[in-house]
Amino acid sequence: MPTQTLASHIANQSDWQDRLYKQIALRIAELIEHGTLRPGERIPSVRELSEQEEVSIATVMQAYRVLESRGLIEARPQSGYYVRAKLWSPPPEPSKSEPTRSATRVNVNDLVMEVLQATHSPALVGFGAAMPSAQLLPTQQLHRTLAAVARRHSTLCNSCDIPPGNLNLRTQIARRAMESGCTLSPDEIVTTCGCQEALNLCLRAVAKPGDTIAIESPTYYGILQIIEALGMKACEVPTFPRDGVCLDELVKRLKCCRIKACVFSLNFSNPLGSCMPDDKKARLVKILAEREIPLIEDDLYGNLSHSPHRPKTAKAFDKHGLVLLCDSFTKTLAPGYRVGWTAPGRFQTQVEHLKFISSIGTPPLLQMAIAEFLATGGYDHHLRKLRRFYAEQVSRVTQAITKYFPPGTKVTRPTGGYVLWIELPSQVNSLELFRKALEEKISIAPGPIFSAKQRLENFIRLSCGAPWSDAMDQALLKLGQLSSRMLL
Amino acid sequence: MPTQTLASHIANQSDWQDRLYKQIALRIAELIEHGTLRPGERIPSVRELSEQEEVSIATVMQAYRVLESRGLIEARPQSGYYVRAKLWSPPPEPSKSEPTRSATRVNVNDLVMEVLQATHSPALVGFGAAMPSAQLLPTQQLHRTLAAVARRHSTLCNSCDIPPGNLNLRTQIARRAMESGCTLSPDEIVTTCGCQEALNLCLRAVAKPGDTIAIESPTYYGILQIIEALGMKACEVPTFPRDGVCLDELVKRLKCCRIKACVFSLNFSNPLGSCMPDDKKARLVKILAEREIPLIEDDLYGNLSHSPHRPKTAKAFDKHGLVLLCDSFTKTLAPGYRVGWTAPGRFQTQVEHLKFISSIGTPPLLQMAIAEFLATGGYDHHLRKLRRFYAEQVSRVTQAITKYFPPGTKVTRPTGGYVLWIELPSQVNSLELFRKALEEKISIAPGPIFSAKQRLENFIRLSCGAPWSDAMDQALLKLGQLSSRMLL
Repeated sequence: MPTQTLASHIANQSDWQDRLYKQIALRIAELIEHGTLRPGERIPSVRELSEQEEVSIATVMQAYRVLESRGLIEARPQSGYYVRAKLWSPPPEPSKSEPTRSATRVNVNDLVMEVLQATHSPALVGFGAAMPSAQLLPTQQLHRTLAAVARRHSTLCNSCDIPPGNLNLRTQIARRAMESGCTLSPDEIVTTCGCQEALNLCLRAVAKPGDTIAIESPTYYGILQIIEALGMKACEVPTFPRDGVCLDELVKRLKCCRIKACVFSLNFSNPLGSCMPDDKKARLVKILAEREIPLIEDDLYGNLSHSPHRPKTAKAFDKHGLVLLCDSFTKTLAPGYRVGWTAPGRFQTQVEHLKFISSIGTPPLLQMAIAEFLATGGYDHHLRKLRRFYAEQVSRVTQAITKYFPPGTKVTRPTGGYVLWIELPSQVNSLELFRKALEEKISIAPGPIFSAKQRLENFIRLSCGAPWSDAMDQALLKLGQLSSRMLL
Repeated sequence: MPTQTLASHIANQSDWQDRLYKQIALRIAELIEHGTLRPGERIPSVRELSEQEEVSIATVMQAYRVLESRGLIEARPQSGYYVRAKLWSPPPEPSKSEPTRSATRVNVNDLVMEVLQATHSPALVGFGAAMPSAQLLPTQQLHRTLAAVARRHSTLCNSCDIPPGNLNLRTQIARRAMESGCTLSPDEIVTTCGCQEALNLCLRAVAKPGDTIAIESPTYYGILQIIEALGMKACEVPTFPRDGVCLDELVKRLKCCRIKACVFSLNFSNPLGSCMPDDKKARLVKILAEREIPLIEDDLYGNLSHSPHRPKTAKAFDKHGLVLLCDSFTKTLAPGYRVGWTAPGRFQTQVEHLKFISSIGTPPLLQMAIAEFLATGGYDHHLRKLRRFYAEQVSRVTQAITKYFPPGTKVTRPTGGYVLWIELPSQVNSLELFRKALEEKISIAPGPIFSAKQRLENFIRLSCGAPWSDAMDQALLKLGQLSSRMLL
């Protein structure tokens, strides 16, 4: 029996209802399903898990017995519990990217906009846009909170809010930043119209037209567009699909390229899903601090770890105010509210000024609604659900790719977020695949929009944000067929 | 008896209650009060007014009789009715501005932010920020509309909206644009996070760092800040306090300065309150079209005419797609919603792209709430009230300045909006006055923030947005005293 069926089987058994051990068994089944716990890997000991989750030994034992009886794990005497069978094996991962070494003008905007306009139709089976599925968001609850805030603070909600932005929201953000290892005061935060505005402001605060910015390869197209629109140049740094930016290669580029700033997404980057280990983050921050180079850290997906705890940010290791952390609530709570923020370190004043110049302020009503939701609305509970859901989705799409895509296909194994980066055999042209898929009412994101010079022609990004459906399964089958035909 | 007392006297008489002629008499009393109808000037004939207002001859007659009996107007045989007594005479107006002729780097941002931070305190008697008073806005009704929209379109209101923006709102904007003489389709409009974002996008769409932009002198500091932040240069054009930009001087500068674009506010500009006559607008558009120079038209105050009908926009005369009209609902309805728009003519695609790059989209919930309010909420009725209110406020503050400020003070006579631009005797330094006023808990806007090179040292802008109060009267007395002391 495939594991995802097992997980739902476990979930549905009525006598399990509302029992603690069910939750634990389910979580571990899911970790096995999406490959975070791999076949042959040791799972936490009964004692470790009991301490970590603050439940009794007996509860964990019960969870493990059920998982064992379902054939998911096995006990090895004197050693502990291990993931048992090799249930299915995902395709290999793409290797480290190999962009050109020189700084280049970016030329991707027109293509990005063409792709975006084409994919922004609800009639498509959407793997194109990396948007969270509406069904997963507590939208009605959030809107109710908003309406209550508007009644309670009527005038304040219709008055001008100037940078750094609403204090309630900044306070909530500062509190939550502790989870990513940061000690921030509300005064060190500037609220913005989404993460995209935050990235714009930070980049303008640290660099000028003509300057060179180091970015990951591949990177989120929105960053490429900002760099292009500001007349800056990009220096793409080779990036590992698991661990993120290759620091040795970064150091080489720092020596030859006069890099003014870096824009990296270290936790579950878009599109790679890579997550830089914390000690590597510390090294990165040190390397840049030695050279006084600012790091703009895009942490948009940082809260979407597939495991219960989120990784640290580079900001957590920053002693010199050189890390400008950017984030928003777009991917986790409120895509329509467009409320984001930045903690721009020593560039606080410049960022505040630029925020005022760009858009005066962020709507106070939306900020206050989110602040209230963070304070009282069960955001953590919601995040836990979201994390489990995305882990399962990523696993399901990966399995479908394994089944349907041509031999030679490579797929990332993200441990957070909900996008997959897929390397197709070199004969496949992803722009052609994008156009053919559109004819079949399927949207994907073609590789060239993630590259400064529209390279990465045989890559695609698939967003797995939406709940699994037969239509998705059929669409992935069709994508596999279209790709296979391009090999002929 | 001073006229403002007369107007309120008329308003309060109980037998006048709810009578049509009372409304008419009151409106004319107000027009006389704030100087739109001046002593000796002929007022509309009984027949003209009866046709214009669609009321009976008898009603108008009754109104005029009351005004006559109060000593406000007089009948001249065979000629009509005239404003009677010289009740008070406002100070003279400032003359045409005389900025330097060359293009200059702008250096005003730090000063602007210092002034803004200092004046953004509710503890001050606020003449500094040009914000509409909260008491004048239908905020509760708007918030209720918002809550209803959120309930009705829950998912849509929490989803991503990409440029050009919400269709309902663009449709409402296109309909209303007819009032300013424009024929716009919804497809020609891009919604934005306020007028400030619209101005940013338009300027970036038409010009590059290093380019020279023609602006009015004085001009809104936000435009100066944008030009400075984008690394552009400013060429300040002499401007008449009544009619706006001097076209002859503009033509001279077009010949010598390689001007890439103009950013003008033609209707009730901030801070001058100038309003360019429609035929002059047509000439301006023609002059620029001959040279293929784009005009970014900031119409933020265009709806706040003190008379019942608003003036046209330059966009109304544009045949070549060279006028980029920018506006928002910040000054008339929703300062806290930050919803604006632009109709960027032939630069539509660039502006849409830049909007996406800058902030992805505008929150759909706020756009839809405003669209719904425009469709059903009585926006026109609200605007009429607002116009009358501001006309009265501007008149009251002008009268207080007449009483309290030192001889040699000059004041603009805006026919729309709610700001006054005041030229003090040359010995008065407005930055010093700004700081001394702050110590007295009074905020004003000092002249240098409206000038590319921080000139205009003896000018101040007073915002008359708030309802009249004794505290305001006392604050103006104090400002007059502080100014007078600087003459010693």
